[in-house]
Amino acid sequence: MATLEYYFEDFSVGDTFDLGEYTFTAEEIVTFARQFDPQPFHLDEARGRASHFGGLIASGWHTCAIMMRLNVDRLLSRSSSMGSPGVEQIEWLKPVRPGDTITVTSSTLEVRASKSRPDRGIVRQLWTATNQHGEEVCRFRGTGMYLRRPVERA
Amino acid sequence: MATLEYYFEDFSVGDTFDLGEYTFTAEEIVTFARQFDPQPFHLDEARGRASHFGGLIASGWHTCAIMMRLNVDRLLSRSSSMGSPGVEQIEWLKPVRPGDTITVTSSTLEVRASKSRPDRGIVRQLWTATNQHGEEVCRFRGTGMYLRRPVERA
Repeated sequence: MATLEYYFEDFSVGDTFDLGEYTFTAEEIVTFARQFDPQPFHLDEARGRASHFGGLIASGWHTCAIMMRLNVDRLLSRSSSMGSPGVEQIEWLKPVRPGDTITVTSSTLEVRASKSRPDRGIVRQLWTATNQHGEEVCRFRGTGMYLRRPVERA
Repeated sequence: MATLEYYFEDFSVGDTFDLGEYTFTAEEIVTFARQFDPQPFHLDEARGRASHFGGLIASGWHTCAIMMRLNVDRLLSRSSSMGSPGVEQIEWLKPVRPGDTITVTSSTLEVRASKSRPDRGIVRQLWTATNQHGEEVCRFRGTGMYLRRPVERA
């Protein structure tokens, strides 16, 4: 079994993880929108310009999906993650436009041993995406379940 | 200008909208996961079976994206929607597996005129996805901005 970097015990309140960055292209914005969120301002630059957004913008769900991808690559894939029961309070604070680069971080808000399952615990983190102008574009609180570090036997 | 079916005035607390249904295939689950959520139990049936989920399951973000698509097709595209500032309390209650069909509804929790912008209002709705066994698999509360119905001039 591969050794993992992050078990439940490895999270402490106040920890911050740099989850990397991602640059959105117009093509990807439109591809996601055609499949999942075909509103005019997500589909086409001209129709975006005609809207109150003033141009093509990414679906908020696309931004969240990219934040998830960065989290999997940098943190979850190296961890004992067992999935998530949910997410609280997604805020889409500013539009994400073609060419925008978001930088994503997560910081640990709460760590709590599971009462019913002694092999695992719950970690609550605040995820934020900030664009190249230093503006927060999206934030939410996510809850994850993680296995505890296995006891080494002598 | 096309006449829209739903302006701010057309939402009332307690209204329920049937947003239709969607059946997930293994191929779509894996395609979404490769791009946005490459955790083992979203990528491969065998690795799903080896996990505590007992099989391949859809990313919770995939379920949300499909719920959004149904909402756009059945409601938002016929409405004066101006987008959403966010979503509260996403709960991923049960796994969604290949072949599962979800039925999605939204029901109106709150309607509120904007104080700062007299041309629009805010509608809060509860979205739920229920599988073919009658089990809720995902729910969240979403907030949308809608323009008011234009005044007709004589």
